[in-house]
Amino acid sequence: MEYKLKRVGRELVMPGKVIDFYRDTMELPDGRIEKWDYIDHKRGGACIVPVLPDGRILMIHQYRPAIDRETLELPAGARDSIQEDTAVTAARELEEETGYRSDKITLLLKLRSAVAYCSEFTDVYLAEDLIPIGGQHLDEAEEIRIEAFDLDTLLEKIYSGQIQDAKTAAGILAYSTRLYKEGK
Amino acid sequence: MEYKLKRVGRELVMPGKVIDFYRDTMELPDGRIEKWDYIDHKRGGACIVPVLPDGRILMIHQYRPAIDRETLELPAGARDSIQEDTAVTAARELEEETGYRSDKITLLLKLRSAVAYCSEFTDVYLAEDLIPIGGQHLDEAEEIRIEAFDLDTLLEKIYSGQIQDAKTAAGILAYSTRLYKEGK
Repeated sequence: MEYKLKRVGRELVMPGKVIDFYRDTMELPDGRIEKWDYIDHKRGGACIVPVLPDGRILMIHQYRPAIDRETLELPAGARDSIQEDTAVTAARELEEETGYRSDKITLLLKLRSAVAYCSEFTDVYLAEDLIPIGGQHLDEAEEIRIEAFDLDTLLEKIYSGQIQDAKTAAGILAYSTRLYKEGK
Repeated sequence: MEYKLKRVGRELVMPGKVIDFYRDTMELPDGRIEKWDYIDHKRGGACIVPVLPDGRILMIHQYRPAIDRETLELPAGARDSIQEDTAVTAARELEEETGYRSDKITLLLKLRSAVAYCSEFTDVYLAEDLIPIGGQHLDEAEEIRIEAFDLDTLLEKIYSGQIQDAKTAAGILAYSTRLYKEGK
């Protein structure tokens, strides 16, 4: 399909720390000109579904100021640089946030957070056969608590609204669907 | 858990059209002060999994300037006002974007797009027993094409990276998992 919607300008209006705020000039299908918000997420990131040998999944409790509540999320983090392979990000965040590593990390799905106005992407990896490495290595801004849950409990938490983080919901549901498709 | 991470200030640095950009002043667990980005999505929205009587799902092709590509997404849209019930948003967006209505719209899951820095929420509804109402009613900035897919095709598109929009992936995977749990 040929689209008539076109971007005819882009202006950086406010640089941020992890994101930059731009104002795009758009030409609409009917020819009118409009200003649209655009958020560039500078680095993108990775998210991990870490599965223990007994099938339970490692999850993170943390306080999220942007929504002013404690969340239950999969481990995740931004890339160290825009050159970094997200598989490297995933392995690092797994070790730092959970204190486990894995020799079996595979891509599960690729996500875009908010396609209407934001460039952010998150690659979601499955990490199986977890091996303990002796404790987390958190940076000074991280204050998190790890807990392992079985898959059915996490699915209930998604359907009841206790888990709302989109990458976490999509990652767990994708893992669940894949197990089902494989007949497990 | 008591968290030591605290927000001690918030400053609006750039108002936008659908989002506002703030700079938060955070007190870290170790006592240091840091500036964090915060994006307030003003209205939140709804997303719909629209299921035809034959089981196929109505999807939307559209061009998304923020990621500079055509996407395949579930119908979705922002609330008309911050008072609007997202069930009303869902019913309206379903009719406008697909030309179908439903008397059976139920909440499937609640999502937060980017909990690290953004307040946006999207309530995802399941719309069953669709009834054609005779054509879409698009606004002047919308340029979309509807196509119906069976569920297995959409799951393949998620796992192969052809569908990356997080609300779309989570919504389809949640519907698929629910069907499986119900033994369908």
